[in-house]
Amino acid sequence: MPALFNKVTLIGIGLIGSSIARVIKRDKIARHLVAVAKSKKTIDSVLKLGIADSVTLDLSEAVNDADMVMLCSPLGTYKKIVREIGPNLKRGCILTDVGSVKGCVFEDIEIEKLLGVNLVPAHPVAGTEYSGPEAGFVELFEGRWCVITPDKTASKDSVEKICKLWEAAGSNVEIMDPNHHDQIMAMTSHLPHLISYTIVGTATDLEKSLVSEVVKYSAGGFRDFTRVAASDPTMWGDIMIKNKEAVLEILQRFNEDLTALQRAIRWDEYDLIHDFFSKTRKIRKEVIQAKQEKMYD
Amino acid sequence: MPALFNKVTLIGIGLIGSSIARVIKRDKIARHLVAVAKSKKTIDSVLKLGIADSVTLDLSEAVNDADMVMLCSPLGTYKKIVREIGPNLKRGCILTDVGSVKGCVFEDIEIEKLLGVNLVPAHPVAGTEYSGPEAGFVELFEGRWCVITPDKTASKDSVEKICKLWEAAGSNVEIMDPNHHDQIMAMTSHLPHLISYTIVGTATDLEKSLVSEVVKYSAGGFRDFTRVAASDPTMWGDIMIKNKEAVLEILQRFNEDLTALQRAIRWDEYDLIHDFFSKTRKIRKEVIQAKQEKMYD
Repeated sequence: MPALFNKVTLIGIGLIGSSIARVIKRDKIARHLVAVAKSKKTIDSVLKLGIADSVTLDLSEAVNDADMVMLCSPLGTYKKIVREIGPNLKRGCILTDVGSVKGCVFEDIEIEKLLGVNLVPAHPVAGTEYSGPEAGFVELFEGRWCVITPDKTASKDSVEKICKLWEAAGSNVEIMDPNHHDQIMAMTSHLPHLISYTIVGTATDLEKSLVSEVVKYSAGGFRDFTRVAASDPTMWGDIMIKNKEAVLEILQRFNEDLTALQRAIRWDEYDLIHDFFSKTRKIRKEVIQAKQEKMYD
Repeated sequence: MPALFNKVTLIGIGLIGSSIARVIKRDKIARHLVAVAKSKKTIDSVLKLGIADSVTLDLSEAVNDADMVMLCSPLGTYKKIVREIGPNLKRGCILTDVGSVKGCVFEDIEIEKLLGVNLVPAHPVAGTEYSGPEAGFVELFEGRWCVITPDKTASKDSVEKICKLWEAAGSNVEIMDPNHHDQIMAMTSHLPHLISYTIVGTATDLEKSLVSEVVKYSAGGFRDFTRVAASDPTMWGDIMIKNKEAVLEILQRFNEDLTALQRAIRWDEYDLIHDFFSKTRKIRKEVIQAKQEKMYD
């Protein structure tokens, strides 16, 4: 495929940024790929890994003449970054991101102030609990969903280009309303992370002698939570606050269900517990059928 | 190794029972292995799999002259089973189990009424989300912990034999006080299962159109919970009630932590959330160091 872009700028080059950088290099999607790092140390890592044509700390310079600028930094940084790069974005430039919440992107970016810029936010639903440019890999997005939530003013061509980029990465692309996206992710991702952080936090606060035994016997279920709860705290702190409304709504439902089960345990209501524990098996089968997980892994 | 037992009776031949049966056959740990099934269908499966020397529905007959009887059925069945087999247990017989709660075993079995029987309860900390004799496999216990909580009247020899059995299965054996065991498992296993069932249940109750999208995008964290929440509802219903005290105590702590985070999200207290999300990373490293999980899996 001929290069989709002349110049691409990735702002942030952690797990996601460095993975899409590897895809862009592999498929020659851009003639020139610039990465913006947040520290000298990251610049050195990126140069050593050879995953970008140039690396810089200078935001405004990096976006000069770029056809596509992708925010790969935590959600909480968008407002400040866009305020800084806004005046330097060229007419027709595509502004996109990889954030896990989509409604807030529109609030923080204020596209009406960026004349001639096409806002095409995206969320690749992929990740690991590791962070930084060394943690990235070219296959990260393969077989995963990528949700695109274009602004209504974005050109058809700009949306197509972002779709093509993620298809090149091996993702299944889906265009969606940003608020609907946020509602689904609150259930499938944000609440599970919040709960995992909480349960691991609860264990951390136990008496010291018990903590070491909890680690020792973690295979009984707990260790799965430690993996999720090892995710980047900056990224996930931002997600909770940026998707506050949907997260609090789904958390409320979860709390009601948990309280009902707590009461059933206290009063030995075995049938109620058994019924609740039975209905959850069906959804597991659906997850396996949807090929979101191998049968045995 | 010479046979540890002349006759062994396994009461219940599901995932755990059939796996230890496979170990007993492989290592010739018993001269005769009897399995008690709960249905004709299970009898046929066991005969077909060839994992026991004989299979029966008749409890009392099965334990006649047995040196060791192992309860591999749900915790809620112990009381009734022991009432039935008690008079048929021979003097010096070892009575053991594989249940996930240990305090209740002593309450339900009333060893003082079983003269000359050695009560040596055990808990192999291993399992999958699959059930039934076909789901068992000989390596299930390898590298896993097995906690033994002998009654104070059990002979030294009987405790040693149960230890040897689980060591043959490849487990690391640890002798522990039953109530201490229950406290640790409430945190490492019972609460994680309760929470997983709850979160998957909350998703199941969403509007039908949303549920299919939750399944579609489950890779974001939710699918890990569906695996845990697919575990056997009878076994886990029993566990919650039988370890009620420890589960409710740890659930209370969890609820306090979750409420604090909920409040922080509502009031945009980013620093509090970030601090909470940061402290959980350390325990993940300890889990990996304790070799309870491979670095990448």
